[in-house]
Amino acid sequence: MTVRLEGKPVAERIDEATRKALASVPAGAAPPCLASVHRGVDSPFRYYLKRQAKAAAVLGITFRDQPLRPGDGPKELVDRLAVLDRDPNVHAVLLEHPLPLPFDFYRAVATLRPAKDVDGVGTANLGRLVAQAPVQVPAVALAAVEIARYYRLPMEGERVVVLGRSETVGLPLALLLAGKGIGLNATVTVVHSKTHDLKGALANARTIFSCMGRPGMLTRELVPEEAFVVDVGVATVPDPARPGNSKTTGDADLASLDGWAAGVTPVPGGVGPVTVAKLMSNTLEAYRLLHAEEGH
Amino acid sequence: MTVRLEGKPVAERIDEATRKALASVPAGAAPPCLASVHRGVDSPFRYYLKRQAKAAAVLGITFRDQPLRPGDGPKELVDRLAVLDRDPNVHAVLLEHPLPLPFDFYRAVATLRPAKDVDGVGTANLGRLVAQAPVQVPAVALAAVEIARYYRLPMEGERVVVLGRSETVGLPLALLLAGKGIGLNATVTVVHSKTHDLKGALANARTIFSCMGRPGMLTRELVPEEAFVVDVGVATVPDPARPGNSKTTGDADLASLDGWAAGVTPVPGGVGPVTVAKLMSNTLEAYRLLHAEEGH
Repeated sequence: MTVRLEGKPVAERIDEATRKALASVPAGAAPPCLASVHRGVDSPFRYYLKRQAKAAAVLGITFRDQPLRPGDGPKELVDRLAVLDRDPNVHAVLLEHPLPLPFDFYRAVATLRPAKDVDGVGTANLGRLVAQAPVQVPAVALAAVEIARYYRLPMEGERVVVLGRSETVGLPLALLLAGKGIGLNATVTVVHSKTHDLKGALANARTIFSCMGRPGMLTRELVPEEAFVVDVGVATVPDPARPGNSKTTGDADLASLDGWAAGVTPVPGGVGPVTVAKLMSNTLEAYRLLHAEEGH
Repeated sequence: MTVRLEGKPVAERIDEATRKALASVPAGAAPPCLASVHRGVDSPFRYYLKRQAKAAAVLGITFRDQPLRPGDGPKELVDRLAVLDRDPNVHAVLLEHPLPLPFDFYRAVATLRPAKDVDGVGTANLGRLVAQAPVQVPAVALAAVEIARYYRLPMEGERVVVLGRSETVGLPLALLLAGKGIGLNATVTVVHSKTHDLKGALANARTIFSCMGRPGMLTRELVPEEAFVVDVGVATVPDPARPGNSKTTGDADLASLDGWAAGVTPVPGGVGPVTVAKLMSNTLEAYRLLHAEEGH
């Protein structure tokens, strides 16, 4: 039987810890504040944005929606981030990504001090992740690892595959999995679009983290029997059950993997809710780091 | 027959390009200058230091030997690096690593601006390597890739293994191999001391980059037949041919791999001389970047 590895209990456990920590914020003090900067246009980020706002409201974290104005370009984006970086009432800043040209995501996010770069995607944080001493780590990478830990999936010393090598998801996740200090000591293979023998690269993998955004690519022809799949992929496809509507789906072909894989995280309902919970706990971490800096 | 993949022709080709570029430095202008900071005690770094000085002298690069004074601690190290970072006549700074406690290597190297961090080991450079836009990349990682390129070893899309996950060698090399933009598009597996099934992790690898420093660990029992080995490991062992003396050796057991592996880089004489050549070309790159900043 293939176990459905739900994100909900994992997210709840993270939220519980966040709530507990928030309870120690002194009465009268401003609560942690997360600002989310985005183009204000229809994009996959907009769906994530709604969930950020909701999770923050439930936990008692202040949420500032920060859409750019129509016509704003790279300079206005940097200016906006600089204002938020200076603002003592803002502790964590998230920047929509990927951003299309002419925006320069890395240049923009470099405006933020590492603690405020809540998603750990700036090069200062990525470099510290390589050196095993990160300030902030991408929430999605933390979420994928947290869900794998919760269900005790094979990682330590075991063959683990990361599908995808983006700078904001696949590579940070691979570094987290392969690392010693803060890492998981897994034997990690990074597989990507240029990999010649995909099936060979997945052979003997115990746990597969898929971050491709290619709906249904993981079938029993590729995934080894009894492997676990943590599905980080998100794509929007037409919904056959509701003609004219679309639905969110992952990289795993659930029908094909059923009765074959040991366990699969669903999309939606797997890594997604855990990512939102981790973003909130990263916000709390930013709040703590900034207060520690000020000597509060 | 197992091919001996000598470093010499690769180093010569790099040196030739460096010499050509140096010829365009205007007469009268100060040549590029590399400063090498170290504890001034007996260590594996001391051997590397001598080769840096010699290579610089041959090419016409100024070399500044910068031993710390006896009793110098972390603060004096940071002060020394800060002085070198400000010095307009110094373009590139190398810091001995690993450094024992109480020294904090990452804190110290963060004193250098990314262009001057000639070995690309500071977190600013490592983060930019993850984001596929590095300023400087560790010379040893560049050397391992350069030697593999020169001999056209299988990399693009192929199964490649990196043995070792240090922040200064194994991980930067893995990022370089796995990357798209500046990378090699290889399907990279990072294997380390906690890997349970070493033989399984190496199975089907076409090219193996070994950075373990464990003499003779790579035998035909581990290495797949017809694989290539780029031996980045360096260790000092007693020399049986000269009792009482020691010699430098790599991770590959040459006797075991002979007639089995497709090719192996020797130690000494493989990655080592290419690393020195790459350190010199990184120094030239630092010189260029700093002059470009100043608008020269």
